[in-house]
This record gives sequence, structure tokens and C-alpha cells, in this order.
Amino acid sequence: MADYFHWFDLLGIAVFAISGTLAAWRNQMDGFGVIVLASVTAIGGGTLRDLILDVPVIWINDNSYFYAIFIAVVATILLVRNRLTIPHNTLQFFDALGLAFFVVMGTQKSLDHGTSTMVAILLGTMSGVCGGMIRDVLCREVPMVFRGELYAVTCIFGGVVYSGLLALGVAQLPAMLSGMTALLLLRLAAMKWQLTIPVFSKHHNELNEP
Amino acid sequence: MADYFHWFDLLGIAVFAISGTLAAWRNQMDGFGVIVLASVTAIGGGTLRDLILDVPVIWINDNSYFYAIFIAVVATILLVRNRLTIPHNTLQFFDALGLAFFVVMGTQKSLDHGTSTMVAILLGTMSGVCGGMIRDVLCREVPMVFRGELYAVTCIFGGVVYSGLLALGVAQLPAMLSGMTALLLLRLAAMKWQLTIPVFSKHHNELNEP
Amino acid sequence: MADYFHWFDLLGIAVFAISGTLAAWRNQMDGFGVIVLASVTAIGGGTLRDLILDVPVIWINDNSYFYAIFIAVVATILLVRNRLTIPHNTLQFFDALGLAFFVVMGTQKSLDHGTSTMVAILLGTMSGVCGGMIRDVLCREVPMVFRGELYAVTCIFGGVVYSGLLALGVAQLPAMLSGMTALLLLRLAAMKWQLTIPVFSKHHNELNEP
Repeated sequence: MADYFHWFDLLGIAVFAISGTLAAWRNQMDGFGVIVLASVTAIGGGTLRDLILDVPVIWINDNSYFYAIFIAVVATILLVRNRLTIPHNTLQFFDALGLAFFVVMGTQKSLDHGTSTMVAILLGTMSGVCGGMIRDVLCREVPMVFRGELYAVTCIFGGVVYSGLLALGVAQLPAMLSGMTALLLLRLAAMKWQLTIPVFSKHHNELNEP
Repeated sequence: MADYFHWFDLLGIAVFAISGTLAAWRNQMDGFGVIVLASVTAIGGGTLRDLILDVPVIWINDNSYFYAIFIAVVATILLVRNRLTIPHNTLQFFDALGLAFFVVMGTQKSLDHGTSTMVAILLGTMSGVCGGMIRDVLCREVPMVFRGELYAVTCIFGGVVYSGLLALGVAQLPAMLSGMTALLLLRLAAMKWQLTIPVFSKHHNELNEP
Repeated sequence: MADYFHWFDLLGIAVFAISGTLAAWRNQMDGFGVIVLASVTAIGGGTLRDLILDVPVIWINDNSYFYAIFIAVVATILLVRNRLTIPHNTLQFFDALGLAFFVVMGTQKSLDHGTSTMVAILLGTMSGVCGGMIRDVLCREVPMVFRGELYAVTCIFGGVVYSGLLALGVAQLPAMLSGMTALLLLRLAAMKWQLTIPVFSKHHNELNEP
């Protein structure tokens, strides 16, 4: 495996750890619970990806992922501990950055293991989305992926750009960087202009239990 | 593997995808979040089953599952998007149908891999229950399995009927269809007459934090 | 594998099943939902550990774990069904006991499979924490691990004591018992004196969506 794979995984894990720490701050969590939340957010997506691909999970033989989480958490704590407020987009920004790394890396790893392009993009999306999903479930919030703003579309788009460029003969590293950039820009644009795709019309909620 | 296995898996996945879409509708979700919720509901149980059995997850080399999800989601969206109300049992009905397919298929797959009958029934139950559990957790509702009405009993019953018939020498396909039918009928009866098994007497909730 | 491994796993599973049953009681659950909650609490951590280590999950070829769960659940139901109240620490006590078994067993199993000591301690912690995390998420409560009182520190401490004693040449069984005892005592002390490690200062919560 190319050396930059390791760095992309490390960066993805670090930025998801930052998003987990910010979510912990938001929920007034304290003590080492912060590290637990940051860790499951950071390694959740990659662990699920590797279990499904039936390869050793990335962190099982490599301590560097834990150093990355630890450094990211401590640095974030030091930065925010005396803040009274944090701009509300900060958490979403780091989540978007984590998505960019994980979706493209997940797509790549799946292709490496011989899946179809479609399954690769979906597994990339899954590995990008799941860490944040676990984070939001543990914090008892509506998962970010369900709060619109093209979240899932953005992931699929990043995977499509990456695998499309590969198919066009572009080398791996520029294809990866392009996929990540495309994903990040679309997600930031969707956040800024609150882009959504309405599917259901307004309705009363009568599907509840009687 | 017999060809109808694939169809049972496809059908189970499609009806769980429908239940996920209905849950998304109920929760006023929008955009591609609907597809994410439908997908995790649909593939959650089967993925966990295959990870535990240590076989390749069903959808990793087979795009047809995603087509099934996509068709089920789009058809459901088209059907419900202009509705103001949906009968409250619709979601539970599709959940029950998904259970019927997944519990029996899960029991069968476990037996195929040499587990004991008891473990097979429990793994079948687990694969049937988990997709809906993830769906309900992501929607922040009390998981359906905990709202009584013989939910878990029903799953175990379906597995017992199927493996019992197999043990009596009945051929696989009729045994499967009987197990699925038995499970579905018991679940529908339990929903209709609100059957429950009381375990705890009424109590004040004093186990809370002080 | 030494014979007491099996017993430690069984005991860990039984006490987590008790904690799941108590959580079901607290949430007024009924019927077989109690057994479902007890089971996922009991086998959640060990299953995740074994999936990540890529070894057969402990219960796949061994019915005794299910007998242990069943006996623990039925005994707990019989004990609490006519109670109006239960001392509020009972659930936390059994959770702590489950932690003691699972953290040390998880650390041991990881070391057996050649991971570094650091990864082993973290995987032990993960397998101890996850069962209770799933239990609390399904009950829609703030996971116990985030409510402070040195929960995560306690797990790491138990893993450090065990692997430290091993490194000092202590035999396996006494090292395990010491690790479990150390973990349990620290956790009980933290519960009794409400020990916490403050990380964030008080703040308004302005990170919410606009």
C-alpha cells in the first residue's frame, strides 16, 4: 500500500476525533468520556469497513492511530476548555473533513479488494457516515446524516469523482485528492446555502401508535 | 446454495427498506437521508449475521441488493409522498414481513455453517431484530422489539418451526415457507389482539440516579 | 486455553445480563424484550472483541453462554418482579462487575493474538464498555460511560494492572484476579465518592444549530 494511505487514514481519524471532542463539549461531557466518544467516532467507520472487507482492522497492529486520537483530543480540549461559545459550524466542518478522507479511502480499499465500483462507493459512504452516526446516537442527537443538506449525496459524489477519475486513467494520488476536495467543497456549499432535496411533502404524523 | 435463498434475502431486504422509508417519512426526514435509513435497516441484520458467521457479507459481491433497496425506496416514496396520513400499522406490517424472511434465512445460514440448532435460532432472531433496532435507534424511538406484543417470542417461534420441520424430514423449501408463514401469522395476531407476556409487576421507578 | 477463561467469560456475560434485566425493569419493559436487552448487553462486548480479533465469536459453538444468560435473567426477574423499588446502585454494581471480567478477558485475548499491550488494553476497554453502551442506547439513556466517575479510566486501569503484573512475571491467574479486583475497587470507590476528572469548564451551549 502506498505510504500516503496511512497518512490519509491518520488524518481522517484525527479530524473525526476532533468532531467527537466537540460533540462531547457540546454535551457537557467530562473526564475520559470525552476520549471514549472521540475514539468511537474516529475508529467506528474504519473498523466497520475493515470488518466487512474481512481485512485486519487498521488499528489492530498499529499504535499510531491512538496517538493521533490522543493528540487530537488533547489539543482540542486545550483549545476549547476556556471558551464560552464555539461557532456552530465548527463541528460540522470537522465532520465534513473526516467524511472527505474516509469516503475516498473506503472506496479505494474496497476497490483494492475487488468489489464492484458501486459497492466500493457505497462501502466508502458507509465508512464515512458510520463514525458520525455512532457519535450522534451516543449523544442522543438526530444523526447529522438525516438533517439534510446533501449529506449522503455528498459522500456518494466524492466516491463517484474518485472512481470516475481512476477509470479515466488519472493516477491514484491526484484522483484521491480530487475526490476529497470535491466532496469537501460540495458539503461546505450545501452547509452554507442550506441545500436540500425535498422528498416528502409536509404531512401530519399519523403513523404513530394508536 | 439453492436459488430461492437469494430471492428470500432480496425480499427480506426490500421489505425492511420499505419499513425504513416509512420510518423516515414518519420522522419528517428528507433527501437522501431516507435512503441511508432504508439501507441500514435493510442490510443491518444480514450484515451482522454474516460477520458473526465469518462469511462474506451478502451484498459485497452482488449489486442486486442495492437495486432492490433503491426500487423499494423509490416506490415507497412515490406512494406516500402525497399522503397526509398512513395507517399506523403499515410500518409494523412491513417490519413483520422482514422478520419472517430474515429470521428463517438466518437460521438456515447458521445451520449451514454447522452451529447448533439453538445458536442457529438465536442468530436468526438476531439478524431479524437488528435491522429494525438500528432503524428505531437512529429515529430515536423505543425499539419495536421492546414494545411487547410477542416480538421476540415470534422470532424464536419462526426459527423453532423451521428447524423442527427440518428435523422431522420436511424438505427445505416447504419448511422455510412454513416457518415464515408461522412467524408472520403469530406476529400479526399479536399486533391485532395486543398480546403480551407480563413479566414485571407495576413499580415506581426508583432505580434512577439519586 | 486455560479452563478458567471460559468461566470468566461466563461470569462476565451473566452479570451483564443481570444489568440488562435491571435496565429493562427500570424502563418498564415487558415480555421477552427483557431477554433481548439482557442478551445484547451480555454478548455485545465479547462479540465485537472477537469480530475485531477475527476469531470465532465465543458463543457460536457453545450453548453454555445462552444458558448463563437465561438463568441470570430468570433469577433476576424472580428477585425483582415484586419489588417496588431497587437501590439505585444495583445496576451500576453489576455493570462494574461485568467490566471487571470483560476488560481483563479482552486484554488477555488480544495479547494472545499478538497485539501490542496498548492495543490490548484498548480492545479490553472496548469490549467492556460496548455491551453497556448498547444497553443504554437501546434504553435511550445517557450511556453510563459518559456520566463521569472515572468509568473509562477505571477500565484502562484494570488493563494496565493486569498487563503490568504479567510483564513483571506474575502468573496468569493471579494477574487476572488482581486486575479484576483493582478495576472493581476503583470503580466502586469512584461511585461512592463520585470521583470525576473535570475537563471542560462550564459553558453555555452555543454550538447548536443556528
